[in-house]
Amino acid sequence: MLGKAKLLKVYLGESERYKNKPLYQYLVHWLKEKGIGGVTVNRGIEGYGADKVLHTARFLELSSDLPMILEIVDVAEKIDPLIQEICAMVPKGLVFSTDIEVYKHGK
Amino acid sequence: MLGKAKLLKVYLGESERYKNKPLYQYLVHWLKEKGIGGVTVNRGIEGYGADKVLHTARFLELSSDLPMILEIVDVAEKIDPLIQEICAMVPKGLVFSTDIEVYKHGK
Amino acid sequence: MLGKAKLLKVYLGESERYKNKPLYQYLVHWLKEKGIGGVTVNRGIEGYGADKVLHTARFLELSSDLPMILEIVDVAEKIDPLIQEICAMVPKGLVFSTDIEVYKHGK
Repeated sequence: MLGKAKLLKVYLGESERYKNKPLYQYLVHWLKEKGIGGVTVNRGIEGYGADKVLHTARFLELSSDLPMILEIVDVAEKIDPLIQEICAMVPKGLVFSTDIEVYKHGK
Repeated sequence: MLGKAKLLKVYLGESERYKNKPLYQYLVHWLKEKGIGGVTVNRGIEGYGADKVLHTARFLELSSDLPMILEIVDVAEKIDPLIQEICAMVPKGLVFSTDIEVYKHGK
Repeated sequence: MLGKAKLLKVYLGESERYKNKPLYQYLVHWLKEKGIGGVTVNRGIEGYGADKVLHTARFLELSSDLPMILEIVDVAEKIDPLIQEICAMVPKGLVFSTDIEVYKHGK
C-alpha cells in the first residue's frame, strides 16, 4: 500500500446504531473484515452536519451524540467498491475522500 | 453537495476569544449562520504553531490552550468567499484547504 | 508558508517509545527543532493498523496503546527531506501526505 492511495473520511453521530451495535464500532469491524489497511476513530467535541443540529460536549444533554470521525486508508481499488455500502450505513452522515501519497504502512 | 468539494481546516488555541466567546465556538455558530454544510471540532492533546510555543495536555499549566481543529466542509463556491474573513478572525492560527470528493451528505 | 504546501499525517501507537521518550513526544520536539511550521497531535479512541490489531478506549486492557495522529504542516521543501527519517522512527506506523493550500499561518 505504498504510493498513491485514498483517505476516506466518515462523519456520523456517536448514538447512531446498526445491527444492535454503535454504528462506528460496527463500521470498524466491518472494514477490518473487508481487509482494509487501516482505520482510526476520533470523537469530536462539537459539530453539526446536514441537519444543522449542533452537538457539543459543553452541555450534558447534547453531549450524548458527539461527532465521530473515521479515517479509512487504503488503495482506491480496495476503498471504492465499499463506498456505496458505507454511504447506505450512514444515512445522516458525511462521507468524502481525498487522494494521498503513502510512504509507510507497517513493516 | 456531492462531487467535488473543499475541506477547510482551521487550527487555533482553545483560550482564544472573539466577541466575548471562545473563538472556536464563535466560528462554529458563524459558519452555521452562513449556511456552511458541516463543521466538526476536535481538541488536540499537544501541538505548536507559527509562534513555536508548545502546548500540551501533559502539564497542567500548559494545557489551558490546547490546539482546536475545525474541519469545515462545503463546495468551493460556499467556502472561498469566507476564507479572508476566517483568516482575519484567527490571527495566530493556521488555515488551509484540500480538495475532496463528497459521496454522501445527509439524506 | 502561504500557497501550495503539504500536510503529512503520521499514525503510531501511544505506547511506542523512542530514545526513552514516548515516540509521539519525541517526534513533536524533533520536528520543532527541524523548524517545521506546525504540528498537532490527536489521540484516537479506536483503530487498527497494518498488524490488524484493534486498539480501543472501550476496554481498559486494550486502551493503553490508542492511536496517536500527528498532523505536520509545511512546504514540501521542508517536509520531503524528513520523510525517510520519520518512516524509520515509526516501524509499525502509517505515514502519508496530501497537498494543501495554505491561506494563513500566524501573523
